[in-house]
Amino acid sequence: MALVVQKYGGTAVTTPEHLKKVAQRVVDSYNDNNDVVVVISARSGETNRLSELAREMSPRQEGVEYDLVISAGEQMIVGLLALGIRELGYKVKTFLGWQVPIYTDPLPTRASIQLIDSLKINAELKKGAIIVVAGFQGIDPRGNITTLGRGGGDTSAVALAHALGAVQCELYSDVDGIFSADPAVCSDARKIDRISYDEMLELASQGARGVQIRAIEYAKKHMVTMQIRSSFTTESGTVVTGEDATMEGVVVTGIVYDKNEAKIAVMGIPDTPGTAAKVLTALADNDISVDMIVQNVSQAEQADLTFSVTKTDFDKAHQITARIAEELGAREIIADRNISKVSIVGLGMKNHAGVAARMFTTLAYNNINIQMISTSEIKVSVAIDEKYTELAVRVLHEAFIGYS
Amino acid sequence: MALVVQKYGGTAVTTPEHLKKVAQRVVDSYNDNNDVVVVISARSGETNRLSELAREMSPRQEGVEYDLVISAGEQMIVGLLALGIRELGYKVKTFLGWQVPIYTDPLPTRASIQLIDSLKINAELKKGAIIVVAGFQGIDPRGNITTLGRGGGDTSAVALAHALGAVQCELYSDVDGIFSADPAVCSDARKIDRISYDEMLELASQGARGVQIRAIEYAKKHMVTMQIRSSFTTESGTVVTGEDATMEGVVVTGIVYDKNEAKIAVMGIPDTPGTAAKVLTALADNDISVDMIVQNVSQAEQADLTFSVTKTDFDKAHQITARIAEELGAREIIADRNISKVSIVGLGMKNHAGVAARMFTTLAYNNINIQMISTSEIKVSVAIDEKYTELAVRVLHEAFIGYS
Repeated sequence: MALVVQKYGGTAVTTPEHLKKVAQRVVDSYNDNNDVVVVISARSGETNRLSELAREMSPRQEGVEYDLVISAGEQMIVGLLALGIRELGYKVKTFLGWQVPIYTDPLPTRASIQLIDSLKINAELKKGAIIVVAGFQGIDPRGNITTLGRGGGDTSAVALAHALGAVQCELYSDVDGIFSADPAVCSDARKIDRISYDEMLELASQGARGVQIRAIEYAKKHMVTMQIRSSFTTESGTVVTGEDATMEGVVVTGIVYDKNEAKIAVMGIPDTPGTAAKVLTALADNDISVDMIVQNVSQAEQADLTFSVTKTDFDKAHQITARIAEELGAREIIADRNISKVSIVGLGMKNHAGVAARMFTTLAYNNINIQMISTSEIKVSVAIDEKYTELAVRVLHEAFIGYS
Repeated sequence: MALVVQKYGGTAVTTPEHLKKVAQRVVDSYNDNNDVVVVISARSGETNRLSELAREMSPRQEGVEYDLVISAGEQMIVGLLALGIRELGYKVKTFLGWQVPIYTDPLPTRASIQLIDSLKINAELKKGAIIVVAGFQGIDPRGNITTLGRGGGDTSAVALAHALGAVQCELYSDVDGIFSADPAVCSDARKIDRISYDEMLELASQGARGVQIRAIEYAKKHMVTMQIRSSFTTESGTVVTGEDATMEGVVVTGIVYDKNEAKIAVMGIPDTPGTAAKVLTALADNDISVDMIVQNVSQAEQADLTFSVTKTDFDKAHQITARIAEELGAREIIADRNISKVSIVGLGMKNHAGVAARMFTTLAYNNINIQMISTSEIKVSVAIDEKYTELAVRVLHEAFIGYS
């Protein structure tokens, strides 16, 4: 008898029809001689609807009252799924965050899980019940309902898997797993069977769907094995786990791209200490995240600063940069909306020299100009002209991963 | 500094615009030097929507899982109203049923309040906060969320008013108060300023809107003064309270009607003991409530049984009665959908003889035939042909209450 935590949410729980399929799937897993704990997130549209109602009452989306409104979505869906499981003839027991309890810090809308008391859930498992837990929510030390922020449902599931000592935390969504590249772009893309936490973190950060970054970090910290799989098929998905020897043999595991990038370059900044920092500080003060950054001295005592932001933030970032650039006496600003970022990720890079060089050569051979570069121990990202995105993914897939 | 409990629900909380008006009203009451505890029920459409979703998952609408689904509506609305009050610049504290806690028995979908712990609410009132409490829900001894059944929000409010020692429980809805007759039918109808619990119980049982019967019973038992008033005006409404001397001076307080009545008569039943009971038992076994009942011996050893049911239950009741009548060897069945019930209610009837006689005479004088009669200490109801309903209300209002 193994204990499995399964997390469902998003498009998998949109209608009662979907929920009935989830109920059947949960019951199948139970009949496969597993103890099953299901963690569920609200239907995608429901959280948006509740959030919009809250915004109409109060434009600032904050405070325990806001959390009260949006956590109602999980309460409803937990009840509905439990009704579906009971209707199939199985014993079921529901837990809202405060009923587990899942204790969090007192930071509404972005709380972090502090402690999960697994006593009551374990007692119900012993009685043979299938457990359904509300994801995304907890209770703070003052007894208020808190929420973990968007995507917190994945983190709830991983944290519960850890607290209960589950063999695996299965994260169900509408993707079949993690692929070596987006199958819509690269027909040779293959599903990755096993991947390390660090690779998954890099892939998710650079654009891969299927699991929230906070959940991966939690899983890595507590060594929880995850499986990212589809709720629409019974195929196995991608297992995310600790590094092992076989993983390091593969140089590049996956290639991801992100089209939500734009470039701003400030040319001819007087090169005195702290000038570049002023631009970046002004952006940070306005909650604009800067992704890639390149600075170089172009002429005597003048520097160029180039960086990327999301397309969403582009207009605001452009205005702010223009204002600061004028204050600094910079020569000119060059701004470009049509940028994308393509990244190669792989644990094997640690031990294989020349991976970046091979990437740059491959792109150059295909006449794709590299505008910015950023690297980590297991990742190389390049900013390129957006129109070459798909071509870049395909040639890099061919160069590093090959044909399926 | 007086403590007031205010209950809002139904059409008063349908949209954010409505809720903003409620928030303003609550704040006005607070600024009037009152401690304010607001009890809120879900928007009418919301509970129906949740109930329908639950029904799609499991046709039986029962169990703690069903309560979990439908109580999500109150959670949302409590959060939304609190956001509105905070947006106006006031300190607000929310309580779900389990947070108060409001303890109920473990009967999902129809729980009764057992005990309200007022400690936490009182502590927050002392800090100057406006309190918003979820109506309609509580927590059972096993820690499950329970609901009190439709209209339970009124009962929550009255029970909280009792537990907190409030001077009054104000029940807001879309009616201005209780009227001596339906103003849509009788232009002379006047708003009743004060009414006793018993009168209010009879009026509500016979068709008056504005407050749930269970809430009146609770208020009567614990002597909680209620005011039934409109959330759309600032006019005072109808105060429901214990009997006093002035009330007994009024013979008839109100005239109500109910068109949701139908009549079934079984003629020529062999008059042996228990035969009539068989019809009524069969109806009860099928969850059909019988309202008025008349039995008389028509010929030697034959009896006629006449009773009324709601129009909603009429077809089912007719079928069941026909089956039993055949078994009993009754002569014939006469069924009539077009019946209504008109009632006069008044505390003064206790001490005034001849009220019923005057009612019958008034109806006879206007050629309205009485088909059935039922009475209580403070009420006389008659079943008449539906088409005379409005005429009956008007002539009885003229006879007993007079012109406004």
